[in-house]
Amino acid sequence: MTTPAGRTDTRFSDGRRIVLSENQQLLNSVDTDTWDNAGYLITSARSVFVIGSGRSGLAAQMVAMRLMHLGLRVHVAGEVTAPAIRAGDLLIAVSGSGTTDSVVSAAKTAKKVSASVLAVTTTIGTPLTQHSDNVLIIPAADKQDHSADVTRQYAGSLFEQATLLAFDSLFQALWSYRDETAERLWERHANIG
Amino acid sequence: MTTPAGRTDTRFSDGRRIVLSENQQLLNSVDTDTWDNAGYLITSARSVFVIGSGRSGLAAQMVAMRLMHLGLRVHVAGEVTAPAIRAGDLLIAVSGSGTTDSVVSAAKTAKKVSASVLAVTTTIGTPLTQHSDNVLIIPAADKQDHSADVTRQYAGSLFEQATLLAFDSLFQALWSYRDETAERLWERHANIG
Amino acid sequence: MTTPAGRTDTRFSDGRRIVLSENQQLLNSVDTDTWDNAGYLITSARSVFVIGSGRSGLAAQMVAMRLMHLGLRVHVAGEVTAPAIRAGDLLIAVSGSGTTDSVVSAAKTAKKVSASVLAVTTTIGTPLTQHSDNVLIIPAADKQDHSADVTRQYAGSLFEQATLLAFDSLFQALWSYRDETAERLWERHANIG
Amino acid sequence: MTTPAGRTDTRFSDGRRIVLSENQQLLNSVDTDTWDNAGYLITSARSVFVIGSGRSGLAAQMVAMRLMHLGLRVHVAGEVTAPAIRAGDLLIAVSGSGTTDSVVSAAKTAKKVSASVLAVTTTIGTPLTQHSDNVLIIPAADKQDHSADVTRQYAGSLFEQATLLAFDSLFQALWSYRDETAERLWERHANIG
Repeated sequence: MTTPAGRTDTRFSDGRRIVLSENQQLLNSVDTDTWDNAGYLITSARSVFVIGSGRSGLAAQMVAMRLMHLGLRVHVAGEVTAPAIRAGDLLIAVSGSGTTDSVVSAAKTAKKVSASVLAVTTTIGTPLTQHSDNVLIIPAADKQDHSADVTRQYAGSLFEQATLLAFDSLFQALWSYRDETAERLWERHANIG
Repeated sequence: MTTPAGRTDTRFSDGRRIVLSENQQLLNSVDTDTWDNAGYLITSARSVFVIGSGRSGLAAQMVAMRLMHLGLRVHVAGEVTAPAIRAGDLLIAVSGSGTTDSVVSAAKTAKKVSASVLAVTTTIGTPLTQHSDNVLIIPAADKQDHSADVTRQYAGSLFEQATLLAFDSLFQALWSYRDETAERLWERHANIG
Repeated sequence: MTTPAGRTDTRFSDGRRIVLSENQQLLNSVDTDTWDNAGYLITSARSVFVIGSGRSGLAAQMVAMRLMHLGLRVHVAGEVTAPAIRAGDLLIAVSGSGTTDSVVSAAKTAKKVSASVLAVTTTIGTPLTQHSDNVLIIPAADKQDHSADVTRQYAGSLFEQATLLAFDSLFQALWSYRDETAERLWERHANIG
Repeated sequence: MTTPAGRTDTRFSDGRRIVLSENQQLLNSVDTDTWDNAGYLITSARSVFVIGSGRSGLAAQMVAMRLMHLGLRVHVAGEVTAPAIRAGDLLIAVSGSGTTDSVVSAAKTAKKVSASVLAVTTTIGTPLTQHSDNVLIIPAADKQDHSADVTRQYAGSLFEQATLLAFDSLFQALWSYRDETAERLWERHANIG
C-alpha cells in the first residue's frame, strides 16, 4: 500500500507503537492491591460467572477458559450449560462504560440472590459499580468515548486488550501461588470439540 | 494472600511484569512487512473468514468483530450464519502450533476451493503453513511447549495475547489508512443482542 | 429402569405420545395465512436478524441457518459478526412469554431504526407484540406457566419444538416456491469449521 | 404470494403436512427400549458431553440445556468452559450421516479416555457407530442424501427435528421418573445473560 497524501500512521509499526505504549502505561497505573484481592475473591468463590458484551465479552471468555484450566468452576453468562447464579458465587462483570444493559442487569440479579459482583470497568460512579461489591478500575476510555484523550485506539480496544493482559497477569500469579505444573493444568484442557 | 514458603512471583505485579515485557519483546520482533501486506490481503478479499480453537479462536473472534466494524464482510468458522468459503475469500487461520486439526482441515478446504489462506502461527514447517499462501509468524511458544524457554507464561497465553495486540495494531493502521471517523465505524456496531 | 411406585409416564414411549400429539394439535391450530405472509416478509427483507433466549434462541438459530441456505442474508443477534440492524431489515423475535428483556429490547431498537419486527410468541397483549409489526401466534404455554393446562411438557418445550417445526414447514414451502435443487442449496452450506 | 405455474406445495400448510406426518411416522418407528436404556446411561454418567455439527449441533445444545435443568452436569463440546472428557463421562454424539469429522474424532477421543459414547444417527456401519458403545437409530435420511426417498424435506431437517422431539420425549419420561416439580427445575434456569 502506498500511503494517501495527508494520512499518517498507516503502517503496522505505527499501530504497534501505539498499542504497546498505551498498554504499558495503562497497566502500570492500575491499583495492584485490588487485583491481588481479586485473585483471592476468584479462587474462593463457589462458582465463577463471567459476563461482558461484544469484544469485552470475548476477552471475558478468554479469562473464563483460563480459570477453568486452573481447576475452578466457571460459567459464561449466556452459555447453553450455564445454570442460575446463587449465593456464594462470584460474577465478574466486564463493561468499559459501566452502563451495558445486560451486564448491569446481571449485576443486579447477582446481588439479589446474594452472589458477589466484581466489576471490571474504566470508572466508578456508574450503574455497574453501584451494584458491585468490588471494582477493578482499568482507566482506559470506554468505547463510546471517541475523543482520543485517553487512547488513540478505536473505541474500547485499549480497555479490551488491557482486560485480557491484566487477567492473564493475575492468572500467572495465581498459578505460581497454587504451584501446579503446566502438565497438571493441561489435563483439564478440552480434548474434544 | 500470604505467599507460601518457597513460592515466588505470586503477586499481580509479578505477572504483569512478565506479561508486559514478553509482549513488548515479541511484538517488536515480528516482520512488519508481512503484517503490512496482510492488511492489503484482508481489505481486498471478497469475504474474510477466521478460524481458531480455544483462546486462539476467541482472539480470532475479537479480530473478526473489529474487521466487521471496518466495513468488511466477515465470518467466523462455526458460526451459525457462516456460509461456504469460496474463491476470492481469505481465511485467517490461527494456530500457535500449526497442527490444530480443525484449523489445518479448514486451510486444506480453503485451498481446494481456491480461497487464500493467511496463517497466524509460531513457526513454519507445519501442516498449517504447508497449506497457507501467506504466513504471519508470532514467534511465541505454542501451547503444548511447557519448557518455559520462550515464555514464562502458561501454555499459549503469550501467543494469544500477541495475536490480539498485533491485529489491533494492524487495525489501527488500516483505520488510519481508510480515514473514516470513529462515529462512522460506530454505526456498524451491533445495536441488538 | 424399574418404575417407582406411584409414578406413571416414565417411559420414552409415554413422552413420545405426549410430544407428538401436542405438536400435532398445536401446529394444526395456527393461522396459516399469517405464516404464508411471514414467508413473504422474510424473503423480501434486506437482511434477516433473529433473536431468542435459551432454547428459543437455539431454535431461532436453527431457523437462521436454514434461511442462510436458502440464499438470504441472515444474522443472529449476539453473534460476533452481526452488524447493526437498519431500515429495511426484518427482526424475527422469538419469546414464548413475550416478556424476555433482551428480546423486547431488541424489538424496540428495531422499531426505532425503522426495521420491521416479526414476533413469534404464545399470545398477544405483551411488551413484545406491542413493539411488533406482525405476530405469529403459537398458542403453547410460555415457559413460566407451570400449570399443565396447555401442555403436559416442561416449561417452554412445546413452544420451542413447535417454533422449529413451524419454521421448517415454512422453509419447505419457500424452497418449493423458489424451485431450487437441494444441490444448489447444499453449495451454500459451511465447508469449514 | 401467488404460486408460479408448475410449482406445488408452496404454502405453509403444505410444508406442515409433510413435517408433521414425517415426524409422526419416524418417531413411531424407533426402538423404544434403546431410548429407555439411553435415559439410564445419561442419568448415571459422571458428566454428560454433547457434540454435533450445524443444526444437529444446535438440537444437541437444546438437549444439553434441558438435561442441565434436570440437575445433571452437562457440557457442550466447543463451549468455552468445557473441560476434558474423562472415564465415567458420557458423550452424546449426534451425526445423521455418522461421518462428520469433528463428531467421529470426538467419539474416538472419548473411547481412548474410557468415556462412553452414545451415538445418535440414521444408520449403523459408519465411522461413528464403530466408535460408539450404544447407538440410537433415528432412521431419517442423512443430510447428504438428496434422493427424497426417506423424506421430502431438505437435507437433514427431519433428522434434526426428530432428534429434538425424541430427546424431549425422553426428558419428559426422566422428569416423571425423578418426580421433581417444575418449580424445582425452574430454579436451575440461568438467571443472568
